[in-house]
Amino acid sequence: MSEGILNGIRVIEGSAFVAAPTAGMTLAQLGADVVRFDAPGGGLDYRRWPLSSAGDSLFWSGLQKGKRSIEVDLRSEQGRETLTRLITAPGEGSGIFLTNFPARGWMSYESLSERREDLVMVVMTGNHDGSSEVDYTVNPAVGFPEAMGPRDCAAPTNSLLPAWDSIMGGLAVVGLLAALRHRDATGEGQLVQIALSDVAIATVGHLGRIAEAQLEGREQPHDGNYLYGAFGGDFETSDKRRVMVVGLTGRQWKALEGATGTEELFARVQDATGHDFRDEAGRYAGRELIRELLKPWFAARTLAEIRAAFEGTGVSWGPYQTFKQLVAEDPRCSTDNPMLSVVEHPVGTYLTPASPLTFSVSGRLPAQPSPALGQHTGEVLAEVEAGTAGDGS
Amino acid sequence: MSEGILNGIRVIEGSAFVAAPTAGMTLAQLGADVVRFDAPGGGLDYRRWPLSSAGDSLFWSGLQKGKRSIEVDLRSEQGRETLTRLITAPGEGSGIFLTNFPARGWMSYESLSERREDLVMVVMTGNHDGSSEVDYTVNPAVGFPEAMGPRDCAAPTNSLLPAWDSIMGGLAVVGLLAALRHRDATGEGQLVQIALSDVAIATVGHLGRIAEAQLEGREQPHDGNYLYGAFGGDFETSDKRRVMVVGLTGRQWKALEGATGTEELFARVQDATGHDFRDEAGRYAGRELIRELLKPWFAARTLAEIRAAFEGTGVSWGPYQTFKQLVAEDPRCSTDNPMLSVVEHPVGTYLTPASPLTFSVSGRLPAQPSPALGQHTGEVLAEVEAGTAGDGS
Repeated sequence: MSEGILNGIRVIEGSAFVAAPTAGMTLAQLGADVVRFDAPGGGLDYRRWPLSSAGDSLFWSGLQKGKRSIEVDLRSEQGRETLTRLITAPGEGSGIFLTNFPARGWMSYESLSERREDLVMVVMTGNHDGSSEVDYTVNPAVGFPEAMGPRDCAAPTNSLLPAWDSIMGGLAVVGLLAALRHRDATGEGQLVQIALSDVAIATVGHLGRIAEAQLEGREQPHDGNYLYGAFGGDFETSDKRRVMVVGLTGRQWKALEGATGTEELFARVQDATGHDFRDEAGRYAGRELIRELLKPWFAARTLAEIRAAFEGTGVSWGPYQTFKQLVAEDPRCSTDNPMLSVVEHPVGTYLTPASPLTFSVSGRLPAQPSPALGQHTGEVLAEVEAGTAGDGS
Repeated sequence: MSEGILNGIRVIEGSAFVAAPTAGMTLAQLGADVVRFDAPGGGLDYRRWPLSSAGDSLFWSGLQKGKRSIEVDLRSEQGRETLTRLITAPGEGSGIFLTNFPARGWMSYESLSERREDLVMVVMTGNHDGSSEVDYTVNPAVGFPEAMGPRDCAAPTNSLLPAWDSIMGGLAVVGLLAALRHRDATGEGQLVQIALSDVAIATVGHLGRIAEAQLEGREQPHDGNYLYGAFGGDFETSDKRRVMVVGLTGRQWKALEGATGTEELFARVQDATGHDFRDEAGRYAGRELIRELLKPWFAARTLAEIRAAFEGTGVSWGPYQTFKQLVAEDPRCSTDNPMLSVVEHPVGTYLTPASPLTFSVSGRLPAQPSPALGQHTGEVLAEVEAGTAGDGS
C-alpha cells in the first residue's frame, strides 16, 4: 500500500517553472522515482515567488515534492555525459525523460535514443513549432481574459492561476503513461510532444468556443461573476463576506428557491414579467433580476447563517475565500482532509497536499517533503557510477 | 499510425458537464473506444451553453468528440442491466468505467466489481466526502478570485474557464492509466477516486500559496494584470489593441529592453531611483514604474508593428484576443496547426482540435467528430447482446 501505484518507474526531469515540474511531481506523488536536475545554484525558477521571509522559494518547494534533486553542470562535457548515462540507464522502469528545456544537441531525442533505443521522452514546448511561450502570454491569446472580469472594466483580466500549465502537466503524464504502456507491450520507445498554446486552444475548442466564434460570430463580453448560459452570481453577506450561488440544473434552482423561501416570489415575478425561470436559458436571460431579488436574503444573513441554512438542501454554493481564509477556515484545507498533512520541508513546515488521486488497492502515498537543491547529487551520481541508476530500487 | 496509442482500450463513461467528459474525450482522442451513456433525450449537460443558432449545444458537442453515444433508460431494470453488462464485459482492454454520477446502488464499485472482479473504476466527485460541488463554487473558495482582477474593484473575479474541471479531467486519465498498468501487471482491478476541491486545494499548495498563507500570513491583493514576483503587464497599442509583456527571466528582460530601445532609460532611472531592474524581485517592486516607462513605446505602435519589432528577439509577449480574434487572426488556431482540422459534426462544421499530444511512433489521430446523441445505441446494444462488447474490436 505504501509504495505508490507507480513504484518501479524512474523518471529524469530537466525543467523549470510550472508545467514540467507539475508533471514530475504528479508522478512522484504516485510513487515514481523522479530525479530532477538543475544547474549548480538552481535554475531559472529557483527564486520564483512566493518566497518565505528567509528568501526561499515556496513555489519551488511546492513543485518539487517527492522528487530527488541533483545539481549538475550542463556546461561541462562531464556533466552532460553524467546526465546522458542517468537518462539512458538500463532497467524496465527507467529510460524515461521529461523536459521543457530546448531538446537540442545532447538533449535531443535523436542523441539520447542512440544510447537507449527504447527511450520514452516527453518534450513540453510553448508553441507547436517549438518556440517558447509562458502561461501569462498564452492566456491573453485564447479569449478568456476578454470575456471575464467586471462589466465596467475596459481592460481584460488575465488569470493569476497558471491554468494552462497545470492542465499541460497532467496531460504530459497521460502522454508518458500511454507511451510507457506501448513500450511495455511492444518494446518500442518514442518521443511525446505537447505545446502549451495547443493545450489552451484545444480546451477553448472542447468547451465549444471555437465553434461559437466560427459558426455564430458571437463574442462574449465581460459579465462579472455571472455564469454563462444559466444562473450563477455572487452575493454579499451581512458580515461583509461574499458567496457564489449557482442554479445550473433544475434541481439546484428548486433547492435555492426552497432554501431562500422565494418560490412564490419567483412565480409571481415570472407571471408579471414573462421571464421563464424554470429552464437554464430563462434563468440566464433573467440573471440580473434573479440576483436583485435574492440580494436581500443574503444581505440579511451572515456567512455562518447562510452556511447553516443551505446545509443539506442541495443548494450549489460556496464562499469566496482568500488564500488565508482557505487555510484558516475551510475544513477541506486542513488535516481533516486525508489528502493533507503537515510536512517538514527544508524551507519550512506546513500543510502539504498529497496526490488528489486515491487507489483502493494501491492506496495513496502521504504528502512528501520537497528536497533541498542538490540534496541527492552524491547519491544519484554514485548510482550512475555503480550502474544501478536504472534498477528502480 | 492511425489507430491511436490507446487503441484496444474500451471505456464506459457515465457523466455530465466538464471534468468527466474531458477525461473520456482525452482517452477517445488517443484511440480508446469510449462509450458515453445518457438518459433518453440527453442528460443535464445536453443543452449547456454555448448553443448554435439551431439550439444545439456546441459545448456538448465539443466534449464528446470521438466517443460513441448511447441512450439508455437508467430508471428501468433492463437499462441498468444492459449498462452493467457493458461495463463488466470481458476483454483485456475492457472493464473500465469512468463516472461523475453518484456511484451508488447498481453503479457502485462494490456491485459492479461483483460482476467483473478486475474492474477499473474512476469516480469523480465534488468533495472528498463525496458531496457535490461545481467548478464555479470551488474556485471562489481557493483564493484566486480574491487575488486577481482590477485593483479598483472590490469584488472578486471568478474564472470563466472551468480550470479545475479541465485539470481534474487530465488527472482522472492519469489515475485510470496507472490503475490499468497495475491491472496489466497483476490482474488486480481497483477503484480510483478524485475530488474537484482536492484538485484545486492541491494545486494551491503546489504553487506555494498554502505555505505562504500559513508561514507568512500574507494575502495577495488584486493587482490587475501585473505578474506576481516579476515584471509582467499589459499595454495598449496605437490601434486600440492590448498586449501582455513578461520579463520573468533576465534574458527576457534584456530582450525587452533591447527591442524597445530602453536600456539607457532603465539604467538612468535605476541610478536615479535606487530600483534594481536587474533581478526579478526588483522588477516586481518597480513594476508600475516599468510599465509607465514602457507605455509610450507601445502607444506609438500598432499591434502589427509590435509583432514585427519583437519577431526573433526573445521578448516574451502576446496579444490579448477575444475568442473571435483567436479564430480569425491566430495562425496557431487554424489548419496551419497540425492539431486542428475542419470537421463535420452533427451540430455544424467547424475547426476542431485533436489531442495536443503527439507520439513519434503512434502518431496523432486526426480531430474526430462528435456523435449525435444516441447515434450508437443500436450498435453498442447489439455488441452487448452478442457478447462482443469487450473484445476491443
